[in-house]
Amino acid sequence: MMVLGIDPGTRRLGWGVVERRGARLVHRGHGVIQTDERQAIAGRLVTIECELVEVVRAYSPIVASVEALFYAKDAQAAAKLGHARGVVLLVCARAGLEVHEYAPALVKRAVAGSGRAEKSQVAQMIRVVLGLPSAPASDAADALALAVTHLQRPQALIAHQAARERGLPSPLSGIKRGPSG
Amino acid sequence: MMVLGIDPGTRRLGWGVVERRGARLVHRGHGVIQTDERQAIAGRLVTIECELVEVVRAYSPIVASVEALFYAKDAQAAAKLGHARGVVLLVCARAGLEVHEYAPALVKRAVAGSGRAEKSQVAQMIRVVLGLPSAPASDAADALALAVTHLQRPQALIAHQAARERGLPSPLSGIKRGPSG
Repeated sequence: MMVLGIDPGTRRLGWGVVERRGARLVHRGHGVIQTDERQAIAGRLVTIECELVEVVRAYSPIVASVEALFYAKDAQAAAKLGHARGVVLLVCARAGLEVHEYAPALVKRAVAGSGRAEKSQVAQMIRVVLGLPSAPASDAADALALAVTHLQRPQALIAHQAARERGLPSPLSGIKRGPSG
Repeated sequence: MMVLGIDPGTRRLGWGVVERRGARLVHRGHGVIQTDERQAIAGRLVTIECELVEVVRAYSPIVASVEALFYAKDAQAAAKLGHARGVVLLVCARAGLEVHEYAPALVKRAVAGSGRAEKSQVAQMIRVVLGLPSAPASDAADALALAVTHLQRPQALIAHQAARERGLPSPLSGIKRGPSG
């Protein structure tokens, strides 16, 4: 099962792909989509769409694990984040991905043991869990942590394995793809 | 010059197309894109994208006049509105439309003479200005008001006419299209 984690933002959008192979979590790729701050927001959203579509094409994930809405410091900041999230959800839904959302505190707890973990702690834990040579950049680390959080949910594993044992496509594998996970 | 006004929303998105022919404003079409509230937000954004792409294809506007961000009552509401706006700006930028944004109070003032005009007053004024048989539904009326507001800006008219007089494409006609306005 291949999961694409996404940490949305209009300036920097982190992504990370993690695959479960049996009990192992395997790192497949990660990166940051950066947009030109001098550009108007509409143009930056086009950049996000184009690059995210390429990521989905390259890895063919079946699930997207996206950072849930949390209470931003003000409505203006929340709306800006909403622009990027809107494009992220659109690209994922259009590609037939199942979209799950996890709150930042839940992700930190799942990966680093505490909902108040620092960003650097999350990045270090991701390095260890996925056996990477160095800690990824913060936005990409958060995205990988979102993917890992989804793959660690017991329900995800149980439903997926039960389906495999019965020779059925995994209920997590989406409608448009075969049992690739 | 053909202008597409858009009043974004995740549940109901109003759109309206108005064309300037000389000094006349001509109504070309309007409507409301409604999404299924039982659907997850990601699926609703796909509906918005598909239907808005159809509207752009049908009318080939050169400018989009979109309701600007205003301070929503809370961050959660602002983020939700941001999702719809993100998809709207994406579709418009991808189609090469020039995107302009106008605050609700400015639109009300431009169309109904007061920044505190009621929605019904805006709809009635739009009916009169565009010579419609009846007042359009509120979301579509707001979208038509956005298009009218853009077309009434003196700068828009002056730049457009100056270009025509010199036999050049209008600076408002975008890069990807000829002088269709």
